[in-house]
Amino acid sequence: MTDATHRRLLIAGSGIAGLSAAIYAARSNNDPLVLEGTEPGGQLTLTTDVANYPGFPEGIGGPELVQNMREQAERFGADVEHGVVEDLTRPETDGPFRVELTNGDVYTADAVIVASGASARTLGVPGEDLLMGYGVSTCATCDGAFFRGEDMLVVGGGDAAMEEANFLTKFADTVYVVHRREEFRAEDYWVDRTMEQVEAGNIELLRNTELLEIHGSKEAGVEHVTLASHPEGHPTDRLDDPATEEFDFDVGAVFLAIGHTPNTDFLAGTGVDLDADGYLRTEGGRGGGQTATGVPGLYGAGDVVDRHYQQAATAGGMGVMAALDADDYLDDLDRVEQAEPATAESDD
Amino acid sequence: MTDATHRRLLIAGSGIAGLSAAIYAARSNNDPLVLEGTEPGGQLTLTTDVANYPGFPEGIGGPELVQNMREQAERFGADVEHGVVEDLTRPETDGPFRVELTNGDVYTADAVIVASGASARTLGVPGEDLLMGYGVSTCATCDGAFFRGEDMLVVGGGDAAMEEANFLTKFADTVYVVHRREEFRAEDYWVDRTMEQVEAGNIELLRNTELLEIHGSKEAGVEHVTLASHPEGHPTDRLDDPATEEFDFDVGAVFLAIGHTPNTDFLAGTGVDLDADGYLRTEGGRGGGQTATGVPGLYGAGDVVDRHYQQAATAGGMGVMAALDADDYLDDLDRVEQAEPATAESDD
Repeated sequence: MTDATHRRLLIAGSGIAGLSAAIYAARSNNDPLVLEGTEPGGQLTLTTDVANYPGFPEGIGGPELVQNMREQAERFGADVEHGVVEDLTRPETDGPFRVELTNGDVYTADAVIVASGASARTLGVPGEDLLMGYGVSTCATCDGAFFRGEDMLVVGGGDAAMEEANFLTKFADTVYVVHRREEFRAEDYWVDRTMEQVEAGNIELLRNTELLEIHGSKEAGVEHVTLASHPEGHPTDRLDDPATEEFDFDVGAVFLAIGHTPNTDFLAGTGVDLDADGYLRTEGGRGGGQTATGVPGLYGAGDVVDRHYQQAATAGGMGVMAALDADDYLDDLDRVEQAEPATAESDD
Repeated sequence: MTDATHRRLLIAGSGIAGLSAAIYAARSNNDPLVLEGTEPGGQLTLTTDVANYPGFPEGIGGPELVQNMREQAERFGADVEHGVVEDLTRPETDGPFRVELTNGDVYTADAVIVASGASARTLGVPGEDLLMGYGVSTCATCDGAFFRGEDMLVVGGGDAAMEEANFLTKFADTVYVVHRREEFRAEDYWVDRTMEQVEAGNIELLRNTELLEIHGSKEAGVEHVTLASHPEGHPTDRLDDPATEEFDFDVGAVFLAIGHTPNTDFLAGTGVDLDADGYLRTEGGRGGGQTATGVPGLYGAGDVVDRHYQQAATAGGMGVMAALDADDYLDDLDRVEQAEPATAESDD
């Protein structure tokens, strides 16, 4: 048996969902340990200004909001530590979970809240892997300023794409938004802001267009891209169609804003149910236990569960629910243990 | 036809759920009108210090948090007005809702978010109605200071009861907590704080005890109460049991903290589905449309829906979901109207 530290409650992930869960779990005396995961603070740390988290009329910086929640959780007794869960298992049914980290550390835990979020998706086109970090980025906020004065390409049609395109106008000569369909699914607020920048000549929209290849080198960065367009959209689905047009296009940086993939690989050993895209399935419904999974003691909250709303406020709400659901489970566990003391004593 | 003002989206209720919905709805250009309801700002305005709303490490005053959200919603274009919805109907299937206020004003609206919350429950015991506001209260924060130096009775066993009892120790000689069962369902944080006050001699717990009658007059206020106790709890269910003991008890004020009733009476005309206790039934589940009711265009969020979690963060999350769900509905409505222009022109 490995020398494992036991915790009553372990929370995998330190974004809005994980930290909101930690605040409530600490107040419920469940002594939570938050493992920060690969992106400490989660996706909101990449957002300069969070305008729509309820409670901050002037907006608040993403990193500041995350730091506030972390302080709040720690103030009530939560521990927050570096650590990425590599493998989660439950050796005995109804026994504690076994939590193995990438650094080899092992914990056991009576209950686990999965708040591991989602990671930026990539296209899989030629040049993308090679140039990631050398002109290709999934985070405009992080990397935009490196390409000051260049033409920049943003791929995507949702809120994130519009927000990144607007942000990049501060640095870019022109920002080109490549979107495979005609219509944008971003909220009106962002479409409106984008249209203002289009009128001002700072953003140009390439609708019904997709990115086929990124050309360049680590030394020179991105030099140009190959695009395809079709008047009815989704050009890569009809590259043989004579109406599909392929063309080269000069840009100095490419920002991918095409969604996220939930971080659930480490859950394989639990047998917990995931949907076709890898999102963690929770009970949902109405009333209590909405964040429960099919595995007793395992709860889910935030972007690892939510494929639809994906807002800071909705992630926070789910985190709070998960902490309350886990508390009910742990209380029941205490009662069972008090009612049925172990029948066999340990030898040592 | 009444002279009704038409709104794209109307939000009934101005607590955390309604204001969070308004922030998102305004950013989605749905031009929301928030009607404040009977308790502007909702129940959180009665809470002095909100310690567990994620984002405020030092806590924040309830009224201040509500005011922040209101400013945030107004900043993005939401209108917030006095008004209580008396009757909501939909004269034509798929036509606009008709919203009649208690002051006689009438609105029509393409979509409505119900965020009307819940109101404090009362016991229905003799003396309660007569003395409400004269020594009987459902809000310790509001009324505690009026009874400085008196012995006070708090009825209930949940978070609210524990929080109120702790708050009242500032003013009371002794605070007595009457709870009909042995165990408290409050979160551990509040049970722990309460036990500290019990040890300090400021709070006394009367478990397995219920309130039968409140004695006093409007002039003299509360003079004493009649209580009943039974060693196995729920004494009022077994008043004939010889083990049930009835006794008089001297206190100067009675605070009821026994839960809330959802405010859904005004929805009767919509035919929308309520549960046995009057809570609004929403779709729930996973994915989009969680806040939809069985009536297209009618959404629900916050304590009027949620009979379980009832936290500021969960209400806020649901409000955001409702605004996003309503936006999907309104976008679809726009597309239908653009695709099928009215076949008959109006005469005037």
